[in-house]
Amino acid sequence: MIRHVNFQMIFLALILLVGSASTALGQKNEQPNVLVIFVDDLGWQDLSEPFYKEKTPLNRRFHTPNLELLAKESVKFTDAYATPVCTPSRVSFLTGMNAARHRVTLWTHPEANNPTDNPDELLDPPAWNINGLSAEEDIPFTYYATPLPEILKNHGYYTIHIGKAHWGAAGTPGASPMNLGFMVNVAGHSAGHPQSYYGEANYGNFPTRATYQAVPDLMEYHGTPTFLTSALTKEAIKALREPLKRKEPFFMHFSNYAVHVPIQADPRFVDKYLADGLDSLEAGYASLVEGYDDSIGELVSFLKQEGVYDNTVIVFVSDNGGLSLAPQRSGESHTQNLPLNVGKGSVYEGGIRVPLLIKKAKGEGRSTIDAPVIMEDLFPTILELTNTPAGQLAQKQVDGKSLLPLLNNKVDESWNNRPLVWHIPNKWILEDGPGINFYSAVRQGDYKLIYDMKGSKVHLYNLKKDIGERYDLAGKENSKTKAMSTLLSKSLKQYQAQMPTYKDSKKLVPYPDELAR
Amino acid sequence: MIRHVNFQMIFLALILLVGSASTALGQKNEQPNVLVIFVDDLGWQDLSEPFYKEKTPLNRRFHTPNLELLAKESVKFTDAYATPVCTPSRVSFLTGMNAARHRVTLWTHPEANNPTDNPDELLDPPAWNINGLSAEEDIPFTYYATPLPEILKNHGYYTIHIGKAHWGAAGTPGASPMNLGFMVNVAGHSAGHPQSYYGEANYGNFPTRATYQAVPDLMEYHGTPTFLTSALTKEAIKALREPLKRKEPFFMHFSNYAVHVPIQADPRFVDKYLADGLDSLEAGYASLVEGYDDSIGELVSFLKQEGVYDNTVIVFVSDNGGLSLAPQRSGESHTQNLPLNVGKGSVYEGGIRVPLLIKKAKGEGRSTIDAPVIMEDLFPTILELTNTPAGQLAQKQVDGKSLLPLLNNKVDESWNNRPLVWHIPNKWILEDGPGINFYSAVRQGDYKLIYDMKGSKVHLYNLKKDIGERYDLAGKENSKTKAMSTLLSKSLKQYQAQMPTYKDSKKLVPYPDELAR
Repeated sequence: MIRHVNFQMIFLALILLVGSASTALGQKNEQPNVLVIFVDDLGWQDLSEPFYKEKTPLNRRFHTPNLELLAKESVKFTDAYATPVCTPSRVSFLTGMNAARHRVTLWTHPEANNPTDNPDELLDPPAWNINGLSAEEDIPFTYYATPLPEILKNHGYYTIHIGKAHWGAAGTPGASPMNLGFMVNVAGHSAGHPQSYYGEANYGNFPTRATYQAVPDLMEYHGTPTFLTSALTKEAIKALREPLKRKEPFFMHFSNYAVHVPIQADPRFVDKYLADGLDSLEAGYASLVEGYDDSIGELVSFLKQEGVYDNTVIVFVSDNGGLSLAPQRSGESHTQNLPLNVGKGSVYEGGIRVPLLIKKAKGEGRSTIDAPVIMEDLFPTILELTNTPAGQLAQKQVDGKSLLPLLNNKVDESWNNRPLVWHIPNKWILEDGPGINFYSAVRQGDYKLIYDMKGSKVHLYNLKKDIGERYDLAGKENSKTKAMSTLLSKSLKQYQAQMPTYKDSKKLVPYPDELAR
Repeated sequence: MIRHVNFQMIFLALILLVGSASTALGQKNEQPNVLVIFVDDLGWQDLSEPFYKEKTPLNRRFHTPNLELLAKESVKFTDAYATPVCTPSRVSFLTGMNAARHRVTLWTHPEANNPTDNPDELLDPPAWNINGLSAEEDIPFTYYATPLPEILKNHGYYTIHIGKAHWGAAGTPGASPMNLGFMVNVAGHSAGHPQSYYGEANYGNFPTRATYQAVPDLMEYHGTPTFLTSALTKEAIKALREPLKRKEPFFMHFSNYAVHVPIQADPRFVDKYLADGLDSLEAGYASLVEGYDDSIGELVSFLKQEGVYDNTVIVFVSDNGGLSLAPQRSGESHTQNLPLNVGKGSVYEGGIRVPLLIKKAKGEGRSTIDAPVIMEDLFPTILELTNTPAGQLAQKQVDGKSLLPLLNNKVDESWNNRPLVWHIPNKWILEDGPGINFYSAVRQGDYKLIYDMKGSKVHLYNLKKDIGERYDLAGKENSKTKAMSTLLSKSLKQYQAQMPTYKDSKKLVPYPDELAR
């Protein structure tokens, strides 16, 4: 009898032992760490690593050796897209939704209930979600969703945000990354750029001189020559020590403020660009880029030194295209992202095409994917890479598609057939520019249709032949134009996209396939 | 043979199973949660719970029902002491050291390398640690120590700071609670009081109007009618959910900005005090106190609701005595802490005697201890209550003594015999007051000796007979005066206390036992 009981206990003990051992063992492989390097305003060409079919003059201008090393172990997406400005992209990343659906279609003001649209003589923007993202219900003018870090945190991830947040306006919960599922927040708040990159200038924190953009949290570097990029990197490494010590998987959103304006030279790197003959503005910009690259080097070194590099997914992406406005940038406006046309704020390629690298936990050597992918795809991709079930989500729908097949080099036609959509029923800057202010667009395969709401016309481009979007095919390829107009209209309706209204008639702007009628 | 192997495995499995079960079980009891409620500038009398032998008019003025409930399950220390101003107390708490030894003897400026002493016509302060505490070595003018939360974190505690920090100046690591062992920091930085308590005023965060004191991190409450005390309480509860979910013990330093100046009425509570006939200033102060009490109620309710109240040590303490300066407070200066003399900044009882409650994890009903205890005692007390070995510490010595015997009602004479020492070789405010600016003091048993460095004289009081320190016995009890002078001198030397210098002669101020020579 005693013998019998013992055997039962022993059996139970063995089950428990084996069970717990396999869990402990399994966790390491099944829950890789995730480091997302989310750059601000970095153009598709602003790296020494080429994302185009050939090296361009811009690729030769910039020096990003650490990114080149990372690319050797990553899948490089040549046709990756963000939205034209920051907050919409950031919200799409955290929710898996297209911006037309979450309706945070423009950048959010630092304080609640302040639309950031400029006045327009013809159109009024719709009542978009001017307060950004919220993980709490019933917050006015926010999109209520379950953010990626919250899901990951609930599945055992130690979640860290470093740098620029800009997901929601002050006065609403989304202003704080802590309310979006991050356990640790360093320097993230409701503003979208730094008042100053200089530690000597306290990153803007001077009594009575600080603006909304004074960077929070970095007091220890005040009055020291620590460039913002460097301070955030130090903070990132410091924060990573805790999950590593705990042997918990981490999700770090490393979102340095660089390379957003104000363009202030990173003194560690600017000299070589001046020596190369760049003017001080462009040399400053290049130094911001290289400073970011240096951060990547520091983070990778740290992960290697801690022995977790081979168990860490790394995603490198920008939130929109490079700024192409003079005099904030040198040269003629909209030439800063060549061969792409225009830049930040525009639905032309210069505003939306971004560099994207994904290193799987165990890097498998360089490969290149030219299937078109978009910001919201990162949400299901990271969930799948981390074996995290999405569970019950507050968002109506996840629009993104997991990139895992592409990461495993399984590319089929469905990737080329799906439409990627951009929708900006807003007035970003006062002076309209190409693809800037009140535009929608759709890409399917090689073709891209752009809808100019104010001009009541569409443009069609073949990106394979004309990446610079110089040759409008709208008057030439009529059936394609019509098909793409129909596709964009259908997509916008599916997303329940908000249309602007005419100031005079108060009527809604028509969908592109209604233009001819 | 197979059978034999199985038995070995089974035996091993059983050992492991039993081992892990007992650890899991043991952890709950051996590592209780710790909630430290660290109030700012709250006087010993500013509660409806009496800490004196009788209820006083002040006890009747204030309404702190939640604290009264907490006191019913706590050990109440009637003779607990802090230092006369905030940063020294805060550093003593985190290090276990007397302020004379850690040399952060005055409050630290928001920015590094700014002594906060006022000019004095007779004396110059020594080179004290004007930049505060640091957990990193070789930071100029800081005391390098291993802070309590770092030790607890390294032993599995989830460490959270909420509210006022003020341990170190910006430009040094101690400015950020994250560098002192806290995993989470909400609203703590290098400043010592809030610019505004009002959410409607963004707690001070207005572009170009913010001072050093604009409260960081609480953006979600900007523009809302959320009083600072309430915002911090919400943040505290939010932050506590994470360790509870993880089933990890927590250490929370809940250090609300209240009840420090600026005295701004807490609209939730001010009306009854106005109705009681208090002027708007004193009604405002009382409302700040009751707002704090409300926070305690909220926190206790939450802990009960989560089922962890009986496994949570609660410490309630103030960082110094109540402010007794008019016109910041109403009435005649130095009468605000009756029956105690003077207030904040002074080595008289009004400046240093503070309310202290300690509820053991499982509260055991009210008891009262009148043995004199001091801020630095909390460091070893919390380590002992949490069964945490101090390990290798950077600080030269822990001066505090664990209060565990007192919590277990084991009081012996050693508690009355040990000298408690205060040392402020600094000029806190421009106008000298009783016990304010360049004073030392020692208490042993019923006696207290005060050393007035500028006046080159000592005062002796018998606290048992004269808690108000009105009857100077220095000219009457000569041998006691001499013995206490010797004791203070000896203690200061042991602590390697820094003495001020005479402006003219550059000579050090003598120790009190050298006065007569």
